[in-house]
Amino acid sequence: MATTGSFITSLVTSFVIFCILLIVYAILSRRPGNAVIYYPLRILRGEDGPAVVKRRGMFSWVLDSFKASEDDIVAVAGLDAAVYMHLFTAALEIVVLSALFCMPVLIPLSATSNYNQQQSRMDPNFTYSNFDNLGMGNVEPNNSKIWAFLLAMFWVSFVVYYVLFKAYRRIVHMRDRAQASAYARPQQYTALVRDIPKTVGKESRIQQVDSFFARVHPGAYNRVQPVYDIKPAEKIFKEREEALRKLEHAEGVWEMSKLKSGNAEGTRPMHKTGFMGLLGPKVDSIEYWRAKSQELNPQVDTVQRTTRQEKGQDAAFVMFNDRRSAAEASQVLHAPHALRWRVTQAPEPEEIVWHNLHIPAWQRAVRRFIVGVLTFFLIVFYMIPIAFVASLTTLENLAKILPFIRSITKIGVLGNIIQAYLPQLALLVFLALLPTILITLSRLEGFPSQSQIVRAASAKYFYFIIFNVFLGVTLFGAVFSNIASVNVLIDQSNLSVAKVVQLLGSKLPPVATYYITYVALKFFVGYGLELSRLIPFIIFHIKRKFKCKTERELREAWSPGAFKYHKSIAQDLLILTISLCYATIAPMILFFAALYYGLGWLVMRNQALNVHVPDFESHGSMWPHIHNRILAALFVAQITAIGYFGVKEFPFAPIMIILPVLTVVFYMFCKKNYYPSIKVVSLYVAADVPKAQPSSAAITEAYTPTVLQEGHPGIRDRRSNLATKIDSTVNAVV
Amino acid sequence: MATTGSFITSLVTSFVIFCILLIVYAILSRRPGNAVIYYPLRILRGEDGPAVVKRRGMFSWVLDSFKASEDDIVAVAGLDAAVYMHLFTAALEIVVLSALFCMPVLIPLSATSNYNQQQSRMDPNFTYSNFDNLGMGNVEPNNSKIWAFLLAMFWVSFVVYYVLFKAYRRIVHMRDRAQASAYARPQQYTALVRDIPKTVGKESRIQQVDSFFARVHPGAYNRVQPVYDIKPAEKIFKEREEALRKLEHAEGVWEMSKLKSGNAEGTRPMHKTGFMGLLGPKVDSIEYWRAKSQELNPQVDTVQRTTRQEKGQDAAFVMFNDRRSAAEASQVLHAPHALRWRVTQAPEPEEIVWHNLHIPAWQRAVRRFIVGVLTFFLIVFYMIPIAFVASLTTLENLAKILPFIRSITKIGVLGNIIQAYLPQLALLVFLALLPTILITLSRLEGFPSQSQIVRAASAKYFYFIIFNVFLGVTLFGAVFSNIASVNVLIDQSNLSVAKVVQLLGSKLPPVATYYITYVALKFFVGYGLELSRLIPFIIFHIKRKFKCKTERELREAWSPGAFKYHKSIAQDLLILTISLCYATIAPMILFFAALYYGLGWLVMRNQALNVHVPDFESHGSMWPHIHNRILAALFVAQITAIGYFGVKEFPFAPIMIILPVLTVVFYMFCKKNYYPSIKVVSLYVAADVPKAQPSSAAITEAYTPTVLQEGHPGIRDRRSNLATKIDSTVNAVV
Repeated sequence: MATTGSFITSLVTSFVIFCILLIVYAILSRRPGNAVIYYPLRILRGEDGPAVVKRRGMFSWVLDSFKASEDDIVAVAGLDAAVYMHLFTAALEIVVLSALFCMPVLIPLSATSNYNQQQSRMDPNFTYSNFDNLGMGNVEPNNSKIWAFLLAMFWVSFVVYYVLFKAYRRIVHMRDRAQASAYARPQQYTALVRDIPKTVGKESRIQQVDSFFARVHPGAYNRVQPVYDIKPAEKIFKEREEALRKLEHAEGVWEMSKLKSGNAEGTRPMHKTGFMGLLGPKVDSIEYWRAKSQELNPQVDTVQRTTRQEKGQDAAFVMFNDRRSAAEASQVLHAPHALRWRVTQAPEPEEIVWHNLHIPAWQRAVRRFIVGVLTFFLIVFYMIPIAFVASLTTLENLAKILPFIRSITKIGVLGNIIQAYLPQLALLVFLALLPTILITLSRLEGFPSQSQIVRAASAKYFYFIIFNVFLGVTLFGAVFSNIASVNVLIDQSNLSVAKVVQLLGSKLPPVATYYITYVALKFFVGYGLELSRLIPFIIFHIKRKFKCKTERELREAWSPGAFKYHKSIAQDLLILTISLCYATIAPMILFFAALYYGLGWLVMRNQALNVHVPDFESHGSMWPHIHNRILAALFVAQITAIGYFGVKEFPFAPIMIILPVLTVVFYMFCKKNYYPSIKVVSLYVAADVPKAQPSSAAITEAYTPTVLQEGHPGIRDRRSNLATKIDSTVNAVV
Repeated sequence: MATTGSFITSLVTSFVIFCILLIVYAILSRRPGNAVIYYPLRILRGEDGPAVVKRRGMFSWVLDSFKASEDDIVAVAGLDAAVYMHLFTAALEIVVLSALFCMPVLIPLSATSNYNQQQSRMDPNFTYSNFDNLGMGNVEPNNSKIWAFLLAMFWVSFVVYYVLFKAYRRIVHMRDRAQASAYARPQQYTALVRDIPKTVGKESRIQQVDSFFARVHPGAYNRVQPVYDIKPAEKIFKEREEALRKLEHAEGVWEMSKLKSGNAEGTRPMHKTGFMGLLGPKVDSIEYWRAKSQELNPQVDTVQRTTRQEKGQDAAFVMFNDRRSAAEASQVLHAPHALRWRVTQAPEPEEIVWHNLHIPAWQRAVRRFIVGVLTFFLIVFYMIPIAFVASLTTLENLAKILPFIRSITKIGVLGNIIQAYLPQLALLVFLALLPTILITLSRLEGFPSQSQIVRAASAKYFYFIIFNVFLGVTLFGAVFSNIASVNVLIDQSNLSVAKVVQLLGSKLPPVATYYITYVALKFFVGYGLELSRLIPFIIFHIKRKFKCKTERELREAWSPGAFKYHKSIAQDLLILTISLCYATIAPMILFFAALYYGLGWLVMRNQALNVHVPDFESHGSMWPHIHNRILAALFVAQITAIGYFGVKEFPFAPIMIILPVLTVVFYMFCKKNYYPSIKVVSLYVAADVPKAQPSSAAITEAYTPTVLQEGHPGIRDRRSNLATKIDSTVNAVV
């Protein structure tokens, strides 16, 4: 693959880009006007923007980020962000601890061998870079040096077990502390009931649920809030919201026009009412939208009333008198046929996906199956273009197809740059399109909460990225370079598990440098962009100039959004998968991985403390997902290591079969011991009595969708209750 | 394999044996003295033996058995027996409904083909019986007739789904009715807590459990009964029990000697106290054992007291104030680390395996793993002798190795009989040794209750029987007859799933007749023996003559024991597996399977009503096990059918791939919808308020092991509380 020259070029250019972005950040973030871009979370929490900027040095963010404790992060950004930070902590620990053994022991062993040289003497087609000499590929087959590599694989495995064990225990503890804390939240008193059977006769949904729960939870059951079909209400509510926004905007335009010199009265904005504002009579915008919104007010009231008079869908929120009872109820089988009256923990009110609640269990199963099939095809068919691109990853190959490229490669530096970035860029473009599709697919599965959708999408993205990027590049990238190995893969009748493991093992070393450049690109450019927020910065300034006329529009323009867990977690895990797979084969990768996670740790903590605003709080439900994926990565690493050790004709390689078995045992242990505490709340924790508890009315209000809330101002502002929410988390933890 | 002649001989001899046993039963069961052998359950329930016998005609058992309702069976023999009967009902329904299509449609289609004849003309080594002409083997490859066989496979699959769906729903209903019923049993108020953490400081186990449960179940928690290490108490208790039994026996001997003429005083029995009663001084047995037992009385009291003063092991039974709370508590996560404070439903007091209760979770996991490995080796190594025997299943093969056998085969009838029974007998002998080993292995896994041990052993036996008998005979029996197919199997490198499926498909038809004779032997001889109880009859009369001197000894001699579920269920399921696999390939097997299950239904109902006494009541927990195994059998049948249709070069065979998928979907549905109700009790059912509930003291007493019960008479009589138990079940259901 890439030669030493293009490899160095890639690293250097990545680093240069990173330095530029770092300087951009240092300059831009110190201008008070940009506080909303670089410290939006602090501003939303009530701090004064310019003041925040003023008291900061150019690189003080590094120190702030470094010094912040876990409790600080939980307090400011919530448990989910703290759990995401734990991914970086855990990965960094894994990589550094692994490197402690692998780098000082394995690299000298490789460097003092010269198998690559021997091979290139035997076979003139065999190419290798100097960098390849630092990997296991350079060690002679069946050499006693391989013992050290085998030992390293054991070391890496135990490092992963140790770090994951510690992290899981810590996160369960953190979560339990938050759940048991003196602060009581509505969702702790509430359970979600789905798949309620049909009502009998004239019985209303409320009567039905009331009589059922009064029977099975005498004493603890408080009241029910049915789930209604809110589609009609939502339609009218949205119309009114639209009108109110247009009204605000028109008023903003008028106010601004007054500020212009020589126009103290200002110009009242006008617009046409017909098709796309191009046809029809011209009207005064302010009066038009005010009339429109006032006209819609009684309609909203009416539709709210009629919706509440309906029977309700076959789902409901059930409130209990105390947290213990709610926690207990959400773990128990309620009805003889388990697919009816399914009771689970209620999601946080903000993250409820109302339109999914009424989907019956059989339909959810069917949807999950169909989405599974679609995801499978998505993953497999994305592979075709990627495989094609990967086969072009070397300019030599490209030049074979498009001869004119050869002339470009002759221009030294340019050739090297193209050589280094062409394949990686192709990969990144492919990946950018995906997350949205996966979120949509996951929403179709019928999950009741946003956080579950994100987790499902994240899982899909992980499968995608492992299959296409990792396996795809490894297998296809190397395989397509010669026809013989393509034939091995195509000849289905001879394809066996043993052969795939062997193929995987034999194809790993040649693409090691490819991955190192990929990791470097990812962390230098990726984190540079994340930290400098160059794109949100530009978009905000464009919007402010041309579009925003009101406070609300301005706020929405700089609103930073939440971490995109469904995208970032899978990508972070890909790097770890690559690192674990190459930890023994090409230990140099651990150095770059340590940089990736170290830098990521700093940057992401900064973003969590200053920038991103959580959409929801799932109390760290993401961790089992991360934990299992890291173990899966280790499992893949162990299997490929067995394959590669086999290629090296090392007779003791079968000893390593114990490693995947250990991984499975460790997985089972964590699943049995820790997972239940993330999935549900243990009674011991839930039985903690809070100082004060929310009133029954407050809980009911929380579980009423915005469009059914009487007397609602009309415009939904997702972050409106952010401050209270975050402060409550502070109370919850401290 | 077997020719038509030996096939007919086998059927006829089986039938003759059956008729003889039937007559033996009819004669013996009408003699009042044999009532304890043929109606022990009725006698134990308080009916008068001779009276029961008197009012019965020779074959009235058939009518009685036929007329008994499900409620009758539940009332007399318990839910577990009723569930076992459901296995016969379901299997019979499956077989008969399948036959409705397969026999009238497929047999004529096969009979009017003549592929067997064609093949034997082409290849003189190809042998077939007339009977083989009635199977799919006789249809020409790629003939449009095969459509009917394909349709039949769909028909059979849907029949299985329908029957299993109906049965599961019915059993859940039956179980819930028993659980919700007005009668309240101790286990409904009790939960078993295992893996209790170490106590802190001087805290006793009772204090520790008390404070934990008072916190997490305020209001509902009643009291705790710790589990003690009863080994020392058990040792002394057993010694006393032994002494008391010997005393009773000696008194019995003395009483009997008085009855002899000319010996009104009787002869007091004497024995030597030394090694095995052969050495040492001679003493008066009655006085010796009376003194011994009286000497042990205070020791028992002391050890009971000291045991109760101990801290208690890390397990306990926790009692609740009402059934609902106990049911709820046994489904919920109690502690943040899920491997501590594991709470489950308490088993019925009688079936508790006391010595397993304290085994910690990690050790249970390790034990389960080791037992799994042992079971695997057991299954695989049993295969070697079976494969050897199966290769000798034809006399021709046997004669090749032992030439003198050829002279035996020449004696017409004898040759045929040997031909028919030799292989089956070999198989049966192998199988007889197994169940005890499997029960022991399952006990080592650390289950807290006898019923779980039986279920685990039954599962192992099923795997064993499918792997060794079904796959073993099919593959090896046919494969070993020619060297080429052995090579296919030995050549591991070329072994693929596709090849195994194909091999399985191609080897099925030749062994069809073998299985029919196996089924015939099984049902005629097996049910004949079960019904006539010839062996228990003989053993009882020998014991009565030579050994029994007291009432208790006599009662123990005729005590009928429980159904051996761990053995019989797997065997019954084997027949169903065979039937399903051959349903389309050799539909005649359905006729014999229908006979097997029809006769089994009658005989087993008779045994349940009159003979066997349940050891425990697990409320039908066996059903999911049976259900899943039937589905597994169907799955195997569908896979082999795909293989066989492939052998017949039928281009539409791939349509059948939908069938295994449907089976998996159906499995998932039942697991989600019905299984939870068998695993735990739903709140709706548990919330039913009983008329009266057992006192706290009575529940505590029930969960005290016999050896710790103060004032216990000294001899444990397992069936002592049978009458009350059965009557309570009657109340529970009616």
